[in-house]
Amino acid sequence: MSRAATNLQIDSARLWGTIHDTAQFGATPKGGVRRLTLSAEDKQVRDWFRKACEEAGLEVHVDALGSMFGLRKGRDMSKPPIGVGSHLDTQPTGGKYDGILGTLAALEMVRTLNDAGIETELPICICNWTNEEGSRFAPAMMASAAYVGDFTTDDILSRKDAEGVTVAQALDSIGYRGDAPVGRQKFTSFVELHIEQGPILEAENKTIGVVDSGQGVLWYDGKITGFESHAGSTPMPLRRDALATLSEIVLAMESIAKKHGPKAVGTIGEAVIAAPSRNVIPGEIAFTVDCRSADAAIMDALDRDLRAAIAEIAARRKVDVKLDLVWRKAPTHFDPRLVDAVENAATQLGYSHRRITSGAGHDACNLNTVMPAAMVFVPCKDGISHNELEDATQADCAAGANVLMHTVLALAGVAS
Amino acid sequence: MSRAATNLQIDSARLWGTIHDTAQFGATPKGGVRRLTLSAEDKQVRDWFRKACEEAGLEVHVDALGSMFGLRKGRDMSKPPIGVGSHLDTQPTGGKYDGILGTLAALEMVRTLNDAGIETELPICICNWTNEEGSRFAPAMMASAAYVGDFTTDDILSRKDAEGVTVAQALDSIGYRGDAPVGRQKFTSFVELHIEQGPILEAENKTIGVVDSGQGVLWYDGKITGFESHAGSTPMPLRRDALATLSEIVLAMESIAKKHGPKAVGTIGEAVIAAPSRNVIPGEIAFTVDCRSADAAIMDALDRDLRAAIAEIAARRKVDVKLDLVWRKAPTHFDPRLVDAVENAATQLGYSHRRITSGAGHDACNLNTVMPAAMVFVPCKDGISHNELEDATQADCAAGANVLMHTVLALAGVAS
Repeated sequence: MSRAATNLQIDSARLWGTIHDTAQFGATPKGGVRRLTLSAEDKQVRDWFRKACEEAGLEVHVDALGSMFGLRKGRDMSKPPIGVGSHLDTQPTGGKYDGILGTLAALEMVRTLNDAGIETELPICICNWTNEEGSRFAPAMMASAAYVGDFTTDDILSRKDAEGVTVAQALDSIGYRGDAPVGRQKFTSFVELHIEQGPILEAENKTIGVVDSGQGVLWYDGKITGFESHAGSTPMPLRRDALATLSEIVLAMESIAKKHGPKAVGTIGEAVIAAPSRNVIPGEIAFTVDCRSADAAIMDALDRDLRAAIAEIAARRKVDVKLDLVWRKAPTHFDPRLVDAVENAATQLGYSHRRITSGAGHDACNLNTVMPAAMVFVPCKDGISHNELEDATQADCAAGANVLMHTVLALAGVAS
Repeated sequence: MSRAATNLQIDSARLWGTIHDTAQFGATPKGGVRRLTLSAEDKQVRDWFRKACEEAGLEVHVDALGSMFGLRKGRDMSKPPIGVGSHLDTQPTGGKYDGILGTLAALEMVRTLNDAGIETELPICICNWTNEEGSRFAPAMMASAAYVGDFTTDDILSRKDAEGVTVAQALDSIGYRGDAPVGRQKFTSFVELHIEQGPILEAENKTIGVVDSGQGVLWYDGKITGFESHAGSTPMPLRRDALATLSEIVLAMESIAKKHGPKAVGTIGEAVIAAPSRNVIPGEIAFTVDCRSADAAIMDALDRDLRAAIAEIAARRKVDVKLDLVWRKAPTHFDPRLVDAVENAATQLGYSHRRITSGAGHDACNLNTVMPAAMVFVPCKDGISHNELEDATQADCAAGANVLMHTVLALAGVAS
């Protein structure tokens, strides 16, 4: 790589400016962003992004699910480009960085390469994937899942939002139903920059997370049937209390996840007592469980240990507990060569860094099933995301964009 | 007491018949009763009850809150009557026995005395107290509470149901706003028969509960504030999980109540997670606590131990837990002479019996604050009450009515 390319840095102020300028599209009073996929606000940011790409000399096209691709030519056009990007849609009360940083950092990289007059061997394609969040249409990461063949395009086009509007109708209404078949845009590999959405980097005072894996997920629906009875007249030893049963399950899940830690988490996020009343012992509770690990063997152990704990608790308390697995997603193991490329870039740039597992799902996790992919994380304040309070520093965003750019340069190669 | 009075038995089939005949007023498809206080169905049963009382030769009057009183004269009219009765209103999905048994057993007693030609020294007054249940208008045991001076009549008349109808309007609409000032009908003492609404008598195979006390009640509103965060990306040691906190509180409440058992119960009946989501660690939970004991010192200990446990849990988990006492009701200690009278009646009649504490509140608990009062319990199936499945046997209902009658005869005295 040339000395110019080796020392290349993105324009931190320009990146920060685009993040805050585009945050106007769907800005909320509390400083967050509400930009549901394929909404009027999403059209605004898409129009802005298309124009910015075109002004940077990229050839923009849109696929049948609205995902946007901006191609920067390389010297060797016989090979597919290095894909770079993320998403511009947000949660209903989302922040300014989730997805947005990764997409705008890809644009900033192109602008920086343009300014420095750097040509790459392989082409580069920057991406804005439709509906990563899944808040308006299910499932989340819809477009990248269709891209890798988990769903057909027609299936996804027929999905409806809460008002009954289909993806097809929503795409048409904002003019983003493109001509390109989903999956036609091939990539040599894909790299995504994202905020961590967790507290680890901040807690350990690291600037860069070199993401080597993504957690697999187990989702369960549970139901406890005890016996509803009078809080005053039912002696403690004769109770079949559904809430006390749930309480033991919650604490069992916590201790099982800790036992298999640090590479495991387990959460009971929803619990609803049927017909709750202040003076009635809860008789029935519906609950959900979310278990994750990047290690398939640990996922199996979580499932086994949770089921064993529940069986023991239910038998001892003479209650019935049903636990149904409703979703299982295998762990992601990012391509080792790409992970090394991210780590090398961070090392060369002098940023503190650590290997990290992505706790959440990302488009790169889907893409990794059909091509080499990797991710770069930067810290976010207090680990808060999917929240208007989501925050990240200008320095960390710039560091992430620099690592992203140098990873892409290493993968694409600099034409001498 | 004459030999005729000593051997007197109520007519079991007649009592059983009135219980099932009147269950038509508000009958539900599942075999229960929906007879909310002062509703059209309540008017039906009140009209029936008034007519039955008049046919039994009683002088019926109604007070300003709709409570009904049927007076059977005694030889000595210079003293107030022995009060006997309960309530005819039900929960929205109530049963055929709660309150109804005690009111109709009082009527059956009068019919039996009439048939046997027995005159008592003191008069007897059978009662149907308005709104014991509290399902339509708060508070429960409204009329007896006003009777003993806990509320003014005007205050109670102004209470509204969920549709905004006042007690005064509801009374007027069914024609049961009586002329008699609340509290004018005095009693020498009061006896109430009721189903246990708990599982103790059935579990111990006893026919009669000699109720010597009623539990005091502590009601709390609680709120846990932890930190809402991503279920996938927040490591176990960095969580501030409101549901795991609640779980420890629920189990602490359970073990504290057991520690002070058998004379203590503690229940968390309501728990609502704010903005629950399958993949979000619960950040905020509102909950309620109901603690009871018939021993004031144990009530103090329950309060002290619960607060200490919560303080320890909250500090260890770095979450905030607020616990506000919203109601404290002192324990009831029924009049020892009346309790002995109930026990003597059960012994003389040859029924198995045990002393018992009432877990729930009853009109007799209110009345005991201004006059000697006592209660008789009979078993109900599986301890189930406030439920359409509520059930009791004909034999147990008759046994309870016999104990009630002989207690009243002992208190009123039989004119020789």
